[in-house]
Amino acid sequence: MKFKLWSMTIAMLLSLPAHAQFQKPEDAIKYRQGAFTLMGAHFSRVAAMAQGRVPFDAKVAADNVAVLNSVVRLPFAAFGEGTDKGLPTGAKPEVWKDSAKFRAAADKMIAEVAKLDTAARAGNLDALKAAVGGVAGSCKGCHDDFRAQR
Amino acid sequence: MKFKLWSMTIAMLLSLPAHAQFQKPEDAIKYRQGAFTLMGAHFSRVAAMAQGRVPFDAKVAADNVAVLNSVVRLPFAAFGEGTDKGLPTGAKPEVWKDSAKFRAAADKMIAEVAKLDTAARAGNLDALKAAVGGVAGSCKGCHDDFRAQR
Repeated sequence: MKFKLWSMTIAMLLSLPAHAQFQKPEDAIKYRQGAFTLMGAHFSRVAAMAQGRVPFDAKVAADNVAVLNSVVRLPFAAFGEGTDKGLPTGAKPEVWKDSAKFRAAADKMIAEVAKLDTAARAGNLDALKAAVGGVAGSCKGCHDDFRAQR
Repeated sequence: MKFKLWSMTIAMLLSLPAHAQFQKPEDAIKYRQGAFTLMGAHFSRVAAMAQGRVPFDAKVAADNVAVLNSVVRLPFAAFGEGTDKGLPTGAKPEVWKDSAKFRAAADKMIAEVAKLDTAARAGNLDALKAAVGGVAGSCKGCHDDFRAQR
């Protein structure tokens, strides 16, 4: 019972500010999907360099990671209560049922992207490769638990 | 003839890097729409303060404008040649037919957002109101010429 109350409190804290920011659930869903689209585009360009599919260009890598790092915190404010429907969404009910775990997964990704930013600014390809792996793992971990198969 | 060649050169310069960044036109369309969604969400929060619909909070205003300012340059790389179709898009053919004018409209908005960022960092509501008007005008100007009515 105590645990349930605590979970509900966390859920309320997470959801209240987010809810206040969007007029309608559709707005929140569009917003978070837009943010993930940007993140995917910029990360994929850096991942392609880390995997040797395109030549490594330190400046291009750093520029792309800088955008990723400026967007990475945004989508998680758009998962407030009531935003589980309104537009097609891959977000599983677990996002809201286990919001503490979801928040932890988000924080993990934010931390991994910060490491990637450090590596990209340093212009070191080996460090970049390692950090790309960390970010990719955090994406996959969260998708496995919180995003429906598409 | 000279003018036409010059226009084509600008169009090629504009379109080449953009084209190289996206695997498919759909990716570019999703990307730019995602960026505009983020910009609209963050700008509307600041506009609501400028219009007195929500109380002015200097920190919230500055935070929202900072996101807007970090995203505002992004969508215009995603209007490369061939991205006029692939997904439903409101972009008019004029985006590609008159790319120099489109680029100028984009630059105008980027400059207006920079002014808004200065005003928001200063925490001055009167300056913020004036700058919000400038940004809104640049949005409208570009939508009138380059976005289909929806």
